[in-house]
Amino acid sequence: MIQGIGAASGVAIGKAFVLPAWEWDVPDRRMEKVDLAKEFERLYEGIRTSKTEIEVMKNEIRETVGAEESSIFDAHIAILDDPVFMSEIQGIIERQYKAAEVAVKEAIDHFVTMFDLLDDEYMKERALDIKDVGNRLLKHLLGTPEITLPSDTQPYILVAKELSPSQLVHLNPENVLGMVTMSGGKTSHSAIMARALGIPLVSGLESLTEEPLSTGDLLIIDGDEGTVYREPSRALLEQFNRIAEEQRLRKEQLQLLASVDAVTKDGYRMRLAGNISSVKDVEQAVKYGAEGVGLFRTEFLYMDRPAFPSEEEQFEVYRQVVEAAGGHPVVIRTLDIGGDKQLEYFPLFEEENPVLGFRAIRISLDEAEMFKTQLRALLRASAYGQIKILYPMIHTLEEVRQANALLEEAKQELLRRELPFNKDIETGIMIEIPAAAAIADLLAQEVDFFSIGTNDLVQYVLAVDRMNEKVAHLYHPYHPAVIRLLRQTVLAAKEAGISVSVCGEMAGDERALPLWLYLGVTNLSMSPQSLLRVKHRILNSTLAEGMEQGKHCYTLSTTEEIEAALTKWTKS
Amino acid sequence: MIQGIGAASGVAIGKAFVLPAWEWDVPDRRMEKVDLAKEFERLYEGIRTSKTEIEVMKNEIRETVGAEESSIFDAHIAILDDPVFMSEIQGIIERQYKAAEVAVKEAIDHFVTMFDLLDDEYMKERALDIKDVGNRLLKHLLGTPEITLPSDTQPYILVAKELSPSQLVHLNPENVLGMVTMSGGKTSHSAIMARALGIPLVSGLESLTEEPLSTGDLLIIDGDEGTVYREPSRALLEQFNRIAEEQRLRKEQLQLLASVDAVTKDGYRMRLAGNISSVKDVEQAVKYGAEGVGLFRTEFLYMDRPAFPSEEEQFEVYRQVVEAAGGHPVVIRTLDIGGDKQLEYFPLFEEENPVLGFRAIRISLDEAEMFKTQLRALLRASAYGQIKILYPMIHTLEEVRQANALLEEAKQELLRRELPFNKDIETGIMIEIPAAAAIADLLAQEVDFFSIGTNDLVQYVLAVDRMNEKVAHLYHPYHPAVIRLLRQTVLAAKEAGISVSVCGEMAGDERALPLWLYLGVTNLSMSPQSLLRVKHRILNSTLAEGMEQGKHCYTLSTTEEIEAALTKWTKS
Repeated sequence: MIQGIGAASGVAIGKAFVLPAWEWDVPDRRMEKVDLAKEFERLYEGIRTSKTEIEVMKNEIRETVGAEESSIFDAHIAILDDPVFMSEIQGIIERQYKAAEVAVKEAIDHFVTMFDLLDDEYMKERALDIKDVGNRLLKHLLGTPEITLPSDTQPYILVAKELSPSQLVHLNPENVLGMVTMSGGKTSHSAIMARALGIPLVSGLESLTEEPLSTGDLLIIDGDEGTVYREPSRALLEQFNRIAEEQRLRKEQLQLLASVDAVTKDGYRMRLAGNISSVKDVEQAVKYGAEGVGLFRTEFLYMDRPAFPSEEEQFEVYRQVVEAAGGHPVVIRTLDIGGDKQLEYFPLFEEENPVLGFRAIRISLDEAEMFKTQLRALLRASAYGQIKILYPMIHTLEEVRQANALLEEAKQELLRRELPFNKDIETGIMIEIPAAAAIADLLAQEVDFFSIGTNDLVQYVLAVDRMNEKVAHLYHPYHPAVIRLLRQTVLAAKEAGISVSVCGEMAGDERALPLWLYLGVTNLSMSPQSLLRVKHRILNSTLAEGMEQGKHCYTLSTTEEIEAALTKWTKS
Repeated sequence: MIQGIGAASGVAIGKAFVLPAWEWDVPDRRMEKVDLAKEFERLYEGIRTSKTEIEVMKNEIRETVGAEESSIFDAHIAILDDPVFMSEIQGIIERQYKAAEVAVKEAIDHFVTMFDLLDDEYMKERALDIKDVGNRLLKHLLGTPEITLPSDTQPYILVAKELSPSQLVHLNPENVLGMVTMSGGKTSHSAIMARALGIPLVSGLESLTEEPLSTGDLLIIDGDEGTVYREPSRALLEQFNRIAEEQRLRKEQLQLLASVDAVTKDGYRMRLAGNISSVKDVEQAVKYGAEGVGLFRTEFLYMDRPAFPSEEEQFEVYRQVVEAAGGHPVVIRTLDIGGDKQLEYFPLFEEENPVLGFRAIRISLDEAEMFKTQLRALLRASAYGQIKILYPMIHTLEEVRQANALLEEAKQELLRRELPFNKDIETGIMIEIPAAAAIADLLAQEVDFFSIGTNDLVQYVLAVDRMNEKVAHLYHPYHPAVIRLLRQTVLAAKEAGISVSVCGEMAGDERALPLWLYLGVTNLSMSPQSLLRVKHRILNSTLAEGMEQGKHCYTLSTTEEIEAALTKWTKS
């Protein structure tokens, strides 16, 4: 048995496939002075090609895994834009007359060594990113083909010195039972991807170097315990076969819940909807038993295209979504770009702190024609099913009033064009900025519903960027301040008689259930993958006990205590 | 009379001095291929020199004007680091074989034209920044001397096509009565600087081009109305002389208030302290009648040096500050770096959203030895006067407990070294993160005092980066959510029997006085320049009326209404 770090949970049993390391043979080639311009051109060409490749991967990941995971690749693009890294490469070319590939290799080695020296987990992960990007650049400069994984073999356990997110992109989850890496930990980008893909991963097995694993070795890996067994005994194999079988069975049983109502043991009915980004996602949500769509992120309609989508194009998508939802309500959020989401044809000035900047409704109110185009498309689709409009990033009454005034204009335009729409379409707002929670009572007077976006709310309330790994340990949805603001928001909605749902990641965390039961939140919207797990928890809970536990949380004063209480309850 | 935009208030009367435009004669020089490396070297050398120069200016501004104004120059450094701008220049050199200065000139022209075309106020201001930086770079590449302002003449009104922050740095406010520019507006960096320097500025006088002003013309400028009078009539001159005289008198009378207690007409006593960054600042604060220091920003002790300051060095500064405060209390905030404040010898990894990142107490708790060095220095200085320790960016109980545990260790270390210190030194926290305001009741159990940092609090509550001009119009200290959180925090402090002061920019805004009177906040700390103005307002107010107005603000639901109510009251 070898003890490592459990980086993505689950058990896998199978033969090892050892991935050869991405090592380059870079001869120390020097230039004549005359060739400098050519070397620069080669370098820039390599950077451009690498960027394009990374963009393509990013889009693939966004489609197959999720928007958040895809943002890993923004870090890679940022490295190619990094002036320090680039001027290091340029300096080597220009002062030492070395070929572009030599300069890239030396710059990578230099930064990786430097970061490794710092003996900081975070910096080590960043070194991996630089290596990944640098290797891509080298590949283009040397014209070497990418190492590909076997696709025609039996399913295997992938073993590698280290795995980069780019290597995981083209992985077929059907073929890869599990993964083992020597470096890396729980916070590496590869670990995030592995968890999203649902592939067990054990990392940090430095000791493996002494007696390296070989392709064909029989392995058991346990991503929960962080253990790897090589050539296990028959008894061990049987034991783990049982565990794996149980895992498979649990998955199957869970799927059976798709058609069951989400009702507690004492008869309290909840409604679970799906968060989606495309028409395709609706089908998946329905498969997992979603009762409609609680959050349709429309920004993906605006991405990877040369210009803003037309009213017709948008209408077509919204109509398809609402029809696919089979009569259930579909909450559609208006464009939420800015922050980490950018459009190529609508360049935003670079911001020091984009998440506190020009984004979402702030842009829509500034670009009224663009916004009205979306509103008209939404209105027209409302003739085909139950559509509700959701405005993101609202933090003042004025913004709601301005948005609704533009909606009124859009309605008038459609009336003139004699196109049908739901005249009483409901409008709501995301509660995701602390100011909105603090004046929820005032905002509730202006809208038909609230949707609490816990991801951003937590980030702003705690002043912790959730994507920044340097402070990730401070990102706590169960901070007492967060649950107090949740309560305040829900109470304001109930007082005003409007409906309220929760659509951030907390909604998909079954530990939060007592909070919802206590506050009387019946509508939750989450990623389709979480639906069955949360429903299973609801079916095994009672309203009475849940409320009591939820109430108890408000007597606690630290995240640790609240999280412990909720975790204990979940396991009970 | 010419009507422009009032960009910095006040009246000035004097002769014009017209600044020649910074125009460069750049012959279209081309290189042979062989010289490319040399041109790149010239370019990089120019960038390095420009950066150093900007750094020097930045530090000067920080010393003379303020830290916030100095950050204007970060935008300039960022342009020199900008990969798009730089690759444009490099591309011209390398593909068209043009000399570095030609490439820089063409790149500036390209970007300025592009930004100007966008017809967006914000982009136009950014075009000015690019021009400013580009001109500096050109200056170095061409070896041209900087245009300097006359220093031996009579005081004058400075007239220019446009003024860059760099040009304002070396301005002697004694010599410059006022300023007039053709381009620019209220939000330009130059306008911010002019307001900080207290020099009247009228901007946006495009019409001036038709009949340009000449050096020696007699001008009256009114920075409140945004008007410029050229060769005014005797009657007008007399009228404005009276206004200018009144302004001067008001200043003098205000200065007389320095030694008067801050008491309302009905006898309610308040205490106004100063926000400082250096020993020198204490003297200024005392001159303007500060009763102690409400916020000593220690980060400036850590800047512009090769390594962390030693315990001895820090002790020496803290002792001097507390002695200069003449028996009044001095609240010293522990290191608050990160965000836009960086240390050269302690590189922080680049963050996507630094203000939501690794900063302030988060760094101190991570770098325990560095933090304890500061705590020991603070403790030792507490033997020489009334020092209180203030922890920044607290958002959990755990952080307070950890910080206090390290303080206890620091005390033990000093006991072993047999050095004197105040064993009962008070510790407090900044309330500047929404989470801290939301759990103020819990935090109040752990500390001796609260200091409300409104600048950051407003920024986080509204999710609006105050330094981002694209959303500056959304930065509202009088948002109803903000004043609710203020109330909640003050009530929690009173309930727990601990003291509370306000130290952000709201404290120095006399319009906010009714809020403080209503909430019962008696301690305000502000930039020394604001002390007399706020005291004047207190002396002319009554507690009873102020409380009523403050209470009224809580019945209003938009920033606009609250601000209007407070402004009206201030003018009453």
